Amino acid sequence: MAGTFVIAQGGGPTAVINQTMVGAALEVRKRHPGARVLGSRYGVRGIRDGDYVDLTEIPEAELMRIAGTPSAALGSTRDKPDAAYCDLVLKGLQKVGAEAFIYIGGNDTSGTQQILTDASGGSIAFVHAPKTIDNDLEENDHTPGFISAAEYTAGAFLTADLDFRALPGIYVAIVMGRHAGFLTASSAAWQIDEESGPHLIYVPERAFSAERFIDDVKRTLDRHKRCIVAVSEGVTTEDGRALVETLVPAERLERDAHGNLKLSGGELGLAFEHALREGLPGKRARVDALGYMPRGFVGAINRVDQQEAFEAGAFAVQVAGDGGGSVALQVENGRTVLRKVPLINVAGKTRHMPADFLDEAGTHLSAAGRAYFERLVPRKYDIGKPFV
Amino acid sequence: MAGTFVIAQGGGPTAVINQTMVGAALEVRKRHPGARVLGSRYGVRGIRDGDYVDLTEIPEAELMRIAGTPSAALGSTRDKPDAAYCDLVLKGLQKVGAEAFIYIGGNDTSGTQQILTDASGGSIAFVHAPKTIDNDLEENDHTPGFISAAEYTAGAFLTADLDFRALPGIYVAIVMGRHAGFLTASSAAWQIDEESGPHLIYVPERAFSAERFIDDVKRTLDRHKRCIVAVSEGVTTEDGRALVETLVPAERLERDAHGNLKLSGGELGLAFEHALREGLPGKRARVDALGYMPRGFVGAINRVDQQEAFEAGAFAVQVAGDGGGSVALQVENGRTVLRKVPLINVAGKTRHMPADFLDEAGTHLSAAGRAYFERLVPRKYDIGKPFV
Repeated sequence: MAGTFVIAQGGGPTAVINQTMVGAALEVRKRHPGARVLGSRYGVRGIRDGDYVDLTEIPEAELMRIAGTPSAALGSTRDKPDAAYCDLVLKGLQKVGAEAFIYIGGNDTSGTQQILTDASGGSIAFVHAPKTIDNDLEENDHTPGFISAAEYTAGAFLTADLDFRALPGIYVAIVMGRHAGFLTASSAAWQIDEESGPHLIYVPERAFSAERFIDDVKRTLDRHKRCIVAVSEGVTTEDGRALVETLVPAERLERDAHGNLKLSGGELGLAFEHALREGLPGKRARVDALGYMPRGFVGAINRVDQQEAFEAGAFAVQVAGDGGGSVALQVENGRTVLRKVPLINVAGKTRHMPADFLDEAGTHLSAAGRAYFERLVPRKYDIGKPFV
Repeated sequence: MAGTFVIAQGGGPTAVINQTMVGAALEVRKRHPGARVLGSRYGVRGIRDGDYVDLTEIPEAELMRIAGTPSAALGSTRDKPDAAYCDLVLKGLQKVGAEAFIYIGGNDTSGTQQILTDASGGSIAFVHAPKTIDNDLEENDHTPGFISAAEYTAGAFLTADLDFRALPGIYVAIVMGRHAGFLTASSAAWQIDEESGPHLIYVPERAFSAERFIDDVKRTLDRHKRCIVAVSEGVTTEDGRALVETLVPAERLERDAHGNLKLSGGELGLAFEHALREGLPGKRARVDALGYMPRGFVGAINRVDQQEAFEAGAFAVQVAGDGGGSVALQVENGRTVLRKVPLINVAGKTRHMPADFLDEAGTHLSAAGRAYFERLVPRKYDIGKPFV
């Protein structure tokens, strides 16, 4: 392959998605001297519109600086191409003589690669390189971007727990995650002792009940004087509706272009504030959203995550030479290994957090859950035990 | 002095308030062998209630671990003692034979020390050791805890800016600060180029206008395709009312025990969301609060801040031997020096951000402001320039 490789980044940015992009770009230089590497701006949109950055001649040192920088340096997109859009993308790829297209992203992105593969007739190798802080890709033990996001989340809840030891009260933080609870569950990775928060975890995989929530908080306050809560933006009630839908008047709900409910705007947080004020009047309570910080905070970029993301990019070039597919991070004998898997196994699918990661009540990590997070996100800071 | 030193921590925790506590405890060991050091739990409340941790015999290594741990290890309080409460505190101090009481905190804390000094008749040395992420203490160039909080804030806005380069839209983050805009202004410390956010800064020292805000955002979007906004929770409108009061129905506002309006609950964020939805319909907008993360995030603890906080604690012991007063961090010839200043100069007063730290419009740092933050919070991460 000495023609053109196209690389793009899709979906929500992460702390290490640039590692994957640079890993791929540098691997092309190594394996295919003379080949051209084009970075498409704003995901497939750049291919459609002919908007590229030529990465071929950019000095390695400059690329490595970009690799260490969070968020998608090429820009990203939430576009989910339909057949007509895919046609434009295929034409765009042919126009630049692309032999391979490496698209870095989550399940939507792998879905796009599946559609393009089906439509192209085999002249171009389509590769999906994994990326998501949701950690919800099938075939993967974990996904590039998740470890850094989990590290931020673990650090944020350690911080909040220490804060509320000093000034007791109730703290609720809403964590990204529409369908999978991995990131929310990572909030418990750095608990310093049995007393530590988060004391309650609510994930999309378990039905949420507002009454049980207030009872849970009451019981925790009785025991610990404080209550730290981690809740996924995507929690749903018994009837399968998003919690935000059950709490917020319909006319105040927002939806995106795909009709997806906007989950973690201020409305959900405010609904929690009101529920706590009514259910536990007079108690100091604070509700925040971790927001976008887990997916790129500069002070929580994990080195292992960086290395794995870089290697996933390099491996994607190998998969391109092998006809295309999806790159998966699997664990064998305790080590992360990269495997090529069929796109169809990953495309558009959601991997949920295993049911046995939580205890029976569904509000605490089980031993299995704890083992998973301790392996992926070992505590990074030496923390002394407060006197209160 | 070979009797008893009492140490307590007051007000909101910071990333380094334990450094000051440990700095004082270890300095007592060095200067006054045989003296006893008692840590009062939950600020003056522990003195009132006789609730102490004996720090005298705790091994230095264990104390140093505590020093490196964010938040107040002794617990804290928001109590503002009245005359009767102060009387109980004085009696509590006499009961343990205290020769000195070192209280680590902000302007309320220094106010308590002033009242206790006046009431005590001179038998006990009252020392205020500075601590606040608001950076609003008179006599101080900056305050322990501020640098770490500013580093978190600078990192958070760098992160948000990189995120919104990739997926354009409007981002508003609400930053702590009731009366002083230092922390909000620190959001601009790590801008990587002229294009970088935060593009707009709103602080309590400048009157806020909702109409002008929408215009400012519109203009920024036209120029940069994205708009990153840092706003203090304490911004007020022309008529001197807190913004949240002008936006939120009175019955939905919360007040604390002192009658202070609860500023940065979800209501303010939601009001911003609604204002943006009305003023700029169809634009992607996200509003979050940085919340408590700036004051203790484990991934943004600054080493200079740690050292200065430790030294301020040690110096407080010196000030105790010198009759009491307030410890101030001043800058002479580019170096931070510690000075004893009269409590009355600091007690209950608020230092505002100098007017010349912002430009004429009041929404960007001026050269003077930039110089201040570059000195205190030099950029810590090597960031590559994105291709979008």
